[in-house]
Amino acid sequence: MSALSPISRAACIGGGVIGGGWIARFLLAGIDVKVFDPHPEAERIVAEVLANAERAYGLLTGAPLPKRGRLTFCASLAEAVAGAEWVQESVPERLDLKRRVLAEIDAAAPAGALIGSSTSGLKPSELQAGLAHPGRLFVAHPYNPVYLLPLVEIVGGVETAPETIERAKTVLDAIGMKGVVIAREIEAFVGDRLLEALWREALWLIKDDICDVETLDDVIRYSFGLRWAQMGLFQTYRIAGGEAGMRHFLAQFGPCLQWPWTKLTDVVDLDEALVEKIGAQSDAQAGGLSIRELERIRDENLVGIVQALKASRGGEGWGAGQLLREFEQRLWAQAGAPPVAVDRAAPLELLETRVSPAWLDYNGHMTEFRYLHVFGDTTDALLRLIGVDLAYVEGGHSYYTVETHLRHLDEAKLGEALMCTTQILGTDEKRLHVFHRLFAGPERREVATGEHMLLHVDSKAGRACPAPASILAKLNVLAAAHAGLPRPAEAGRAVGAKARAAAAE
Amino acid sequence: MSALSPISRAACIGGGVIGGGWIARFLLAGIDVKVFDPHPEAERIVAEVLANAERAYGLLTGAPLPKRGRLTFCASLAEAVAGAEWVQESVPERLDLKRRVLAEIDAAAPAGALIGSSTSGLKPSELQAGLAHPGRLFVAHPYNPVYLLPLVEIVGGVETAPETIERAKTVLDAIGMKGVVIAREIEAFVGDRLLEALWREALWLIKDDICDVETLDDVIRYSFGLRWAQMGLFQTYRIAGGEAGMRHFLAQFGPCLQWPWTKLTDVVDLDEALVEKIGAQSDAQAGGLSIRELERIRDENLVGIVQALKASRGGEGWGAGQLLREFEQRLWAQAGAPPVAVDRAAPLELLETRVSPAWLDYNGHMTEFRYLHVFGDTTDALLRLIGVDLAYVEGGHSYYTVETHLRHLDEAKLGEALMCTTQILGTDEKRLHVFHRLFAGPERREVATGEHMLLHVDSKAGRACPAPASILAKLNVLAAAHAGLPRPAEAGRAVGAKARAAAAE
Repeated sequence: MSALSPISRAACIGGGVIGGGWIARFLLAGIDVKVFDPHPEAERIVAEVLANAERAYGLLTGAPLPKRGRLTFCASLAEAVAGAEWVQESVPERLDLKRRVLAEIDAAAPAGALIGSSTSGLKPSELQAGLAHPGRLFVAHPYNPVYLLPLVEIVGGVETAPETIERAKTVLDAIGMKGVVIAREIEAFVGDRLLEALWREALWLIKDDICDVETLDDVIRYSFGLRWAQMGLFQTYRIAGGEAGMRHFLAQFGPCLQWPWTKLTDVVDLDEALVEKIGAQSDAQAGGLSIRELERIRDENLVGIVQALKASRGGEGWGAGQLLREFEQRLWAQAGAPPVAVDRAAPLELLETRVSPAWLDYNGHMTEFRYLHVFGDTTDALLRLIGVDLAYVEGGHSYYTVETHLRHLDEAKLGEALMCTTQILGTDEKRLHVFHRLFAGPERREVATGEHMLLHVDSKAGRACPAPASILAKLNVLAAAHAGLPRPAEAGRAVGAKARAAAAE
Repeated sequence: MSALSPISRAACIGGGVIGGGWIARFLLAGIDVKVFDPHPEAERIVAEVLANAERAYGLLTGAPLPKRGRLTFCASLAEAVAGAEWVQESVPERLDLKRRVLAEIDAAAPAGALIGSSTSGLKPSELQAGLAHPGRLFVAHPYNPVYLLPLVEIVGGVETAPETIERAKTVLDAIGMKGVVIAREIEAFVGDRLLEALWREALWLIKDDICDVETLDDVIRYSFGLRWAQMGLFQTYRIAGGEAGMRHFLAQFGPCLQWPWTKLTDVVDLDEALVEKIGAQSDAQAGGLSIRELERIRDENLVGIVQALKASRGGEGWGAGQLLREFEQRLWAQAGAPPVAVDRAAPLELLETRVSPAWLDYNGHMTEFRYLHVFGDTTDALLRLIGVDLAYVEGGHSYYTVETHLRHLDEAKLGEALMCTTQILGTDEKRLHVFHRLFAGPERREVATGEHMLLHVDSKAGRACPAPASILAKLNVLAAAHAGLPRPAEAGRAVGAKARAAAAE
């Protein structure tokens, strides 16, 4: 069992874009995954989705992910599901095919395995009819890109056991997704009902030349799309209703449902002419960007949006950002202190990260203050190592940085790997004096140094105080290990001055 | 005429939430606004929207806004529209009322004035019928909150002059909004058509107990809502179609339109029972947060999302973020260098900003690296002052920071005003040595100092080179003015050392 997830072995039947997304989610949560997909290109497609997912995760979070699970492609369905605790079916959307595959899974999977279907429209009752163990079958409907969008609609059929739904939600929540239980099954559940309604209307607008696809997309992404990244339809209208409240808003808005624009509820005929019209307009809209480029832009945008929501409410987070924050807290909790040898006479390697797109200036270089961002994260890792973790900080004590000296030596560029080393220069019961070196790229170019003085503080009183013996004990092991290291020539240097001779603390 | 906007005088008829949003957009773009609204609480409502807008703008951008326009409440419609270049009508959504008000505007407004209606559903042809000058009437339909969501649907009626549409779009784009022209008028235009279709479906889902309003909102904001903040429906599906392209996607997806879930296109009866059901679920969802609190959370989230999109594509921006970036470039361009006396023997006051919610750590304090962020912005302002602006940097030269010394003296908190002063410590043809002091709050508590050494560089060659005479001339005026200032005691100090005696450069 992974420290993060209540399951450690999953099987994915079908490895397309959706199946590949599930595979990535499981692997990145430390879960081993066996895959069965007879498609000749399945391994390539999965590898591409996985590469996208790892890239996106690397941008999304600096929290320590568990060791990636093991990925195995199997020659048969039975081999893939053997030993699995969760089997996820993501084969094409045809009832006969899904029922046949699910019957095979049902026959071969361990008795306790959960069986989820990625169907976006079929009712779970129809999928489970005739299975030997229908109680463990449910719909787990994710959204593309599965590795970034957290939502999974969990829908049970008439024969689904209530504990199946509970167990499924527990697993999804543990691996950083958002399991939302839909109370009653209907075709297409909730999300695709809403999408389909809007899609019907959109097709009419294009067919009738009210606008083209680029205009329609702009209408969405410059207005309610921005709203819906953080609050849904009803919460948004609650605010629009103002102090008079939701009931007042509904009373005002209700009559509109009888206005002329509600009549257009026929289903458009998506004939060849309309397909070609949309295809041509979509080509024009893409402006020469390939699908792969659009995919990367989309993923970086989603990462940025979720990170922005993580900073909401003074860092408490909101919606998908709050979900990420809580997931990261669990990642830190299961990771504990960084796995480094604290008694080695060598600088610590506490942090590895990557230059995020949000860190660039207009020249495409990492912005000045992001160097301090990385040094600050490194210092945080050092503090966790000596026992100054979230619980300690919440208890009213912490180390605050009081002084910093930075030297910029070279430039770090988008996506480059960053690695930071840390040397303890000095300690006493209140003070902690550290020296970081930041390296970029596979060749480990030294790009910056950071020298920092921290004070142990009583954060309520707002003044320095001696650190407790438990912290100092750990700190002293480190300090002793580093005592014999040569002092960096750049330490103790003032801005504009040459390096001074090393001085005692 | 404001340097930013092609118009300098607007009139707003109706000052509710939407009218107030227009007023804020105009005022913050430096446009004088006269308001007519007979509602007894109009002034209070407008003041509240304006306060929200100023707060949100303060978080959204550090670029120099033009001097805020003058706001005047008028006793009559005729008085409000006198001299206006743009008249925006935002009265309640009743055809008879709008026609009466628009006729009054048409009679009283200057001949060249644009007349926009905020209607969310009525066709412009119906609004302009019978006006003496129907050619200047158009729909300018914004989205709430108007001061943050950029979209304005521009829709002309049969009698609208083409140049009216062009002029309207020019003004909207100039003040940072996104004017999108809808090719053909229909009731509710494009955005509200899409919203109404989804809303119909949502009401059925609640009425039929498929889910409650919180679940429905979660389905939106953890999935496609995140997608739509940056790419609309068609661009998203283009990616989903993968390498096979949009036509393939449509061919695959087309048959779904005939599946059972498309049948639900009746209009729901929004009766008392349904209103009460939604009202009660919405109360539960709000979890005790007031409308005002939700409004602030929403605004901060929107700010964060737009800022995240501004960082997209290596800082080039995407969608609403690209719009913001381009708007800020125009703001900087029209502002020119900061309006400071460069020959005064006093530290420069180059930057005023505010502690953004995105800058807080888990303690609610400004994160360490954001102090360097503010110092970096201050240095940028100094550089613009001596002629190192975007054009200069794009020409291949710039100043790079090579060394920094920070001291943290106190904590800055959410929303606090920040002010930074700058003293030139020394210059030569390559070097620029500066000392910043950062103050927070109305009492100007000193919270940090930053000492920085910059080098003038040839950015392509990646090495230092002498700055040109034009830059040095401006720099030397500043340096001479500061030459007699006392040197800060903290300058030239190394981490952990006491202040050294001031040394010659």
